[in-house]
Amino acid sequence: MNIVITGGAGFLGVRLARELLKQETLSLAGSPAQTITRITLVDRAAPPADLAADSRVHAMEGDLNALLEPDNTAAPVVAEGTSLIFHLAAAVSGECEADFDLGMRSNLDATRALLQACRELKAAPTLVFASSLAVFGNSPEQPLPEVITDTTLPTPQNSYGIQKFIGEQLVADYSRKGFVRGRNVRLMTVSVRPGKPNGAASSFLSGMIREPLAGVRAVCPVAPETPVALSSPGHTIDGLIRAAEASDTQWGARTAINLPALKTTAGEMAAALARVAGKEVAGLIDWQPDPLIANIVTSWPAHIRAERAASLGLLPEQSFDDIIRAYLRENPYAVKPPQR
Amino acid sequence: MNIVITGGAGFLGVRLARELLKQETLSLAGSPAQTITRITLVDRAAPPADLAADSRVHAMEGDLNALLEPDNTAAPVVAEGTSLIFHLAAAVSGECEADFDLGMRSNLDATRALLQACRELKAAPTLVFASSLAVFGNSPEQPLPEVITDTTLPTPQNSYGIQKFIGEQLVADYSRKGFVRGRNVRLMTVSVRPGKPNGAASSFLSGMIREPLAGVRAVCPVAPETPVALSSPGHTIDGLIRAAEASDTQWGARTAINLPALKTTAGEMAAALARVAGKEVAGLIDWQPDPLIANIVTSWPAHIRAERAASLGLLPEQSFDDIIRAYLRENPYAVKPPQR
Repeated sequence: MNIVITGGAGFLGVRLARELLKQETLSLAGSPAQTITRITLVDRAAPPADLAADSRVHAMEGDLNALLEPDNTAAPVVAEGTSLIFHLAAAVSGECEADFDLGMRSNLDATRALLQACRELKAAPTLVFASSLAVFGNSPEQPLPEVITDTTLPTPQNSYGIQKFIGEQLVADYSRKGFVRGRNVRLMTVSVRPGKPNGAASSFLSGMIREPLAGVRAVCPVAPETPVALSSPGHTIDGLIRAAEASDTQWGARTAINLPALKTTAGEMAAALARVAGKEVAGLIDWQPDPLIANIVTSWPAHIRAERAASLGLLPEQSFDDIIRAYLRENPYAVKPPQR
Repeated sequence: MNIVITGGAGFLGVRLARELLKQETLSLAGSPAQTITRITLVDRAAPPADLAADSRVHAMEGDLNALLEPDNTAAPVVAEGTSLIFHLAAAVSGECEADFDLGMRSNLDATRALLQACRELKAAPTLVFASSLAVFGNSPEQPLPEVITDTTLPTPQNSYGIQKFIGEQLVADYSRKGFVRGRNVRLMTVSVRPGKPNGAASSFLSGMIREPLAGVRAVCPVAPETPVALSSPGHTIDGLIRAAEASDTQWGARTAINLPALKTTAGEMAAALARVAGKEVAGLIDWQPDPLIANIVTSWPAHIRAERAASLGLLPEQSFDDIIRAYLRENPYAVKPPQR
């Protein structure tokens, strides 16, 4: 089985590729398990050394839009014989707000071009589209309901959310037409992300845990009582793979499913950090409210009822303590004593 | 005030232009009434003689996508100084199902190019986007709720509906960014349309009244008990104009509003025809079920609760008898005795 991962050198792409290589086989859309023979990682950046060294991995470096241009003479992003595509590549929310045209190109045009490339294959491949919780936005004119379900009307309040929601519609219609077998999956805010802060407004939701564990002070720009909905990297990857495995009947409607999320608060996250790593570590969090970020974060829904995900066996984490422990298990090198 | 109507030589475009010319002024988005100095009708076809003869009317003939090409050297579709655009031009549902690429180009690409043209103006114009009831589709995996409200999740079951729903998202985000003042309006099935049958699956909902009134037999391809939601041409035009007049506060959220619709059935329509025009006329309806059309029509919602429209003073018709009487008043030439 040939698999393509766009955004394949990004945090989720790398983790997804490692997981797929480890499991060696995949049962695609309810059919018997097949050996994974090739994973193509499409990204602006090169994959990490462990992936580059795997004979099953093929790296395709470049801008996704440029690679998908019809007059691109290099190898196609989606080669004949591709069974499964995970479309993770995207410009993040902050970038899309700062540069409207960049967001439209990276998120809308690229998704459409990718779907067109799939349509040209002899056999319709499965496409798992990474949509986002960001399709749900709160506004004074149209407050979000208390609980978000799979049939809640998305009302995006930023360009990233709009572009993701449009992507869902495109995937749904290309699926209905039989051009792809689409799987629209809304990812929750991932925490704890390893690595460095990024341009997303949600970046602090990993940073306020990751940095103190590395002995470095970190800012939490929202009040402790601010509710948030989170999913660990591991659960997020499980959701993507499960979407590829589900049969059409198991999957159901072509609309997106929400992945499960743990409902917690910034304050509870800090308390969990104190329980797992000690009060001194949790003391490295600086509570410095930033109205700009707080406004964005409080416009996100915090209570997700992910019924379709549950029917696929995907359940939320039970506690943020568990999420921190998983991070520590997976990133032992990232832990350092507090700097004095 | 300069106004642009895309699809301006179509049935609704012509009627809208006549109505605007008759009222002479418009109170745009809650501001004081201004004189309408120019209406540009953009369409593949030429406008009818009465409109062409009006000194305020300017006809721009051609393909909307071609006219909106950045390298088009002719006059721009949206000239500097345009205050209001009604975007009615679209490929209809039947065409979009038959030719996927045509639908994407005519409905998605054209809407986006029009929004880009608006964005380039010095002052953001008001854009009334004619979306459609077709965003709501029924499917076995995701049955529609009994009653459709303004916050019901659209689940389009055809490409036309998907493209209209994507158009709503684009208009919403271009509005949020301040590039236009957007007004997403979902039109209901219009009946009784004068003129000829068209490629829409809903065409018979006008034809089964219009043709018998002209003395010609007509087919009703669905069972009498089939529920349908309808709006007269007059009410539909009222909805479009009211959308342009509403202030931002009156309008509310950037998501689409459903226009009001009368809930009736094919059988009740025929009974109304018998009451208004006589049993002999209603006898010209041939009840010939067509499973293909019946399948499409029964996938549409029949019960619309249009609360936002009601708050703008837009209410559904009270009876289909009234709709037929209005048609007779407006189209006296279209009535002929039954042919024997």
